[in-house]
Amino acid sequence: MLMTDVIVKKREGEKLSAEEIKFVVDGYTRGEIPDYQMSALMMAILLRGMDREETLQLTMAMRDSGETLDLSAIKGVKADKHSTGGVGDKTSLILCPMVAAQGVKIAKMSGRGLGHTGGTIDKLESFPGFNTGISEEKFIENVNKFGIAIAGQTADLDPADKKMYALRDVTGTVPSIPLIVSSIMSKKLAAGADVIVLDVKSGSGSFMKTAEDAHELAENLTAVGKLAGKKTVAVITDMDEPLGNAIGNALEVKEAIEVLRGEKKGELLELCLTLGSCILTEAGIAADDAAARKMLEKGIEDGSALEKLAELVEGQEGDRRAVFDTSLLPQAPVQFEAVCDRTGYVKHICADEVGLVSMHLGGGRATKESVIDLSVGIILKKKVGDKVEAGESLGTIHAQSIEAAKKAAEMLNACYTVVPDPVEKPAFIKGIVR
Amino acid sequence: MLMTDVIVKKREGEKLSAEEIKFVVDGYTRGEIPDYQMSALMMAILLRGMDREETLQLTMAMRDSGETLDLSAIKGVKADKHSTGGVGDKTSLILCPMVAAQGVKIAKMSGRGLGHTGGTIDKLESFPGFNTGISEEKFIENVNKFGIAIAGQTADLDPADKKMYALRDVTGTVPSIPLIVSSIMSKKLAAGADVIVLDVKSGSGSFMKTAEDAHELAENLTAVGKLAGKKTVAVITDMDEPLGNAIGNALEVKEAIEVLRGEKKGELLELCLTLGSCILTEAGIAADDAAARKMLEKGIEDGSALEKLAELVEGQEGDRRAVFDTSLLPQAPVQFEAVCDRTGYVKHICADEVGLVSMHLGGGRATKESVIDLSVGIILKKKVGDKVEAGESLGTIHAQSIEAAKKAAEMLNACYTVVPDPVEKPAFIKGIVR
Repeated sequence: MLMTDVIVKKREGEKLSAEEIKFVVDGYTRGEIPDYQMSALMMAILLRGMDREETLQLTMAMRDSGETLDLSAIKGVKADKHSTGGVGDKTSLILCPMVAAQGVKIAKMSGRGLGHTGGTIDKLESFPGFNTGISEEKFIENVNKFGIAIAGQTADLDPADKKMYALRDVTGTVPSIPLIVSSIMSKKLAAGADVIVLDVKSGSGSFMKTAEDAHELAENLTAVGKLAGKKTVAVITDMDEPLGNAIGNALEVKEAIEVLRGEKKGELLELCLTLGSCILTEAGIAADDAAARKMLEKGIEDGSALEKLAELVEGQEGDRRAVFDTSLLPQAPVQFEAVCDRTGYVKHICADEVGLVSMHLGGGRATKESVIDLSVGIILKKKVGDKVEAGESLGTIHAQSIEAAKKAAEMLNACYTVVPDPVEKPAFIKGIVR
Repeated sequence: MLMTDVIVKKREGEKLSAEEIKFVVDGYTRGEIPDYQMSALMMAILLRGMDREETLQLTMAMRDSGETLDLSAIKGVKADKHSTGGVGDKTSLILCPMVAAQGVKIAKMSGRGLGHTGGTIDKLESFPGFNTGISEEKFIENVNKFGIAIAGQTADLDPADKKMYALRDVTGTVPSIPLIVSSIMSKKLAAGADVIVLDVKSGSGSFMKTAEDAHELAENLTAVGKLAGKKTVAVITDMDEPLGNAIGNALEVKEAIEVLRGEKKGELLELCLTLGSCILTEAGIAADDAAARKMLEKGIEDGSALEKLAELVEGQEGDRRAVFDTSLLPQAPVQFEAVCDRTGYVKHICADEVGLVSMHLGGGRATKESVIDLSVGIILKKKVGDKVEAGESLGTIHAQSIEAAKKAAEMLNACYTVVPDPVEKPAFIKGIVR
């Protein structure tokens, strides 16, 4: 088989066979197919498309490009969650303990964040002593004991995706539904869970700018998950502003704890309840979404969800006291109000730009080698729909120095679109595809 | 400027600016833009297209990627010719002396052939002593003295095209009109002639499988040539079989001499008269095509065209006697008839496959380092429309050994499509775009 022939076939809009797709993925992973042929093929896929069957075959070939996790030693239903990405997205920190408290097993391997803010793994390291590098044995043991473990990826899962994603990033081939679906689902399938819930972001801050595109992506993700034998649900959510109020690693952990304590309501809780209900019903633990929701709400009220977070922390050598006393989390020395220079209503907050403010403060990684400052970040005080007066604070900057904070406050002002007339906030949860 | 942004722009079907195109071509030529980004962009160009203005800008940027020839020291109108490629295409060997005999200046730099048969430069080396590596001074001197010189490329012309063509070849991005046009025209513009005639092949043996595609390519080539300030004409010709009867370097030289002697008529002569008429009228030497044709025919009758070939050979240290006595050209030791195994009418002769027969005999280059055997090749005896009986010869194989000849005879049989009913030969010259 010749790579050039495969490229020409897709270029002409023809369907690739399972053998052709496997040849491409294996050859590229092993370095036998060069980047320049792969990028031409990916552009042809982006512009010509792939049908459901091709997308499934691509997903399976990528899944099988490296190791796959064997979770058979874990009793019960294993669930996993994926978000298509978002600034201020601390959902996993809330959702995982919430559903684990109801008996679903969470055996989650996460990557570190590259870009604006840290990933879930980075955020968890805000707990003093927390070890994200536990062995596979300890990981399985903890899931069986506590029902939850979240660790940095140890196994060589899905190497094809790592190479393909890096190449897509620099060749203008990111926004292709078959390529996005195979990238997400191959990793989730390699990670071995039985139930997969997906948070598909829609709106200006995400890959999928329109509701139609987000819906199409959600449909494709769930279809491929089901064809691969997994219970898969996708929740489509709005992303016209950062999720919740905190952006920055320890600040997001603190916000997650507030939600688990029942102190904080709003969109973030709503999203976790929705995703959690999907998991409980798909896992067969609740009869329907309404029953599942009640169980999850009770877990917050009775403190069992928060206790599950403490068990997670304790099980991985962290200081469980920090779950109950957030002053033990890293704290930045400077707190500075970002004063608004306009009066009106918040129409939009550019999430990506807010991410760059966090990056400027030291809360994100510019390269793989960067060290993250876990303490810095922003607590937004104004969100879409809010009225703001010139002189009021848009948010509190947590920084290492007053200079850094002042610059961040200026940058934060530029993230806000403020208009004279009242703004109606759009629906946050836009749909569920199951 | 970021290459990724340029890729995304073209991917979305937008028009690239002159600055963006120059950034890409210069960056790629200098090695600052990697192959994997260039191949993604070329696939996007292939699938999204480029308008006339973009194609012109791409052509100019490629032309300016290296040296350009300065032919201002040559008096008179300089003409150049290009063919989109064909097996058995010895047109330049006939056309150049024909028009030079009428006063048009031919200062032609040619590449060596890579693939089935040699290029014009290889073919000319069939003349004992012929030097294709003359200096640029000697080259200009010869054109001023004899009106004709054909040399191997010395200057670093159009390095962008060399890199881009090599990449297109392995990334499925060859058949794109803007990429083909810019590749051809950038080289022709860098070579400095005033009049450019293009032989655009159409049919199964060429890039452009349909007459419509060939016409579109011809339109684009001439338009870009004119926008760049050159008199440009394209002749569209059929390529459902090899051109003429000889395939192989010295054999093609011999056939060219037969045409220049007036001994051989047919398509090959017709093509040279048509291309030559276009040159003479565009150069202002003839009032119209009919007048031009008369001049060219007279040049064959009175021997001046043949004498011009002898001057070309002599001017470049070759043995001019070989022009008048072709037994002085390289001769293969074995001549073997390829006997036909079927009876019927020749419907089609796969030119590419015939090229592979020549390659098998040693007449082509598999790699840049291969040494060509100038003596070997095939003289076709049956062409499209001819009746053939089982046992008759399809052509004579000129080989180094009887084993090679026998294998070639078998391969040649497989190149022929023979049908029971009479075949009407399609028109050879399909159109002229000027």
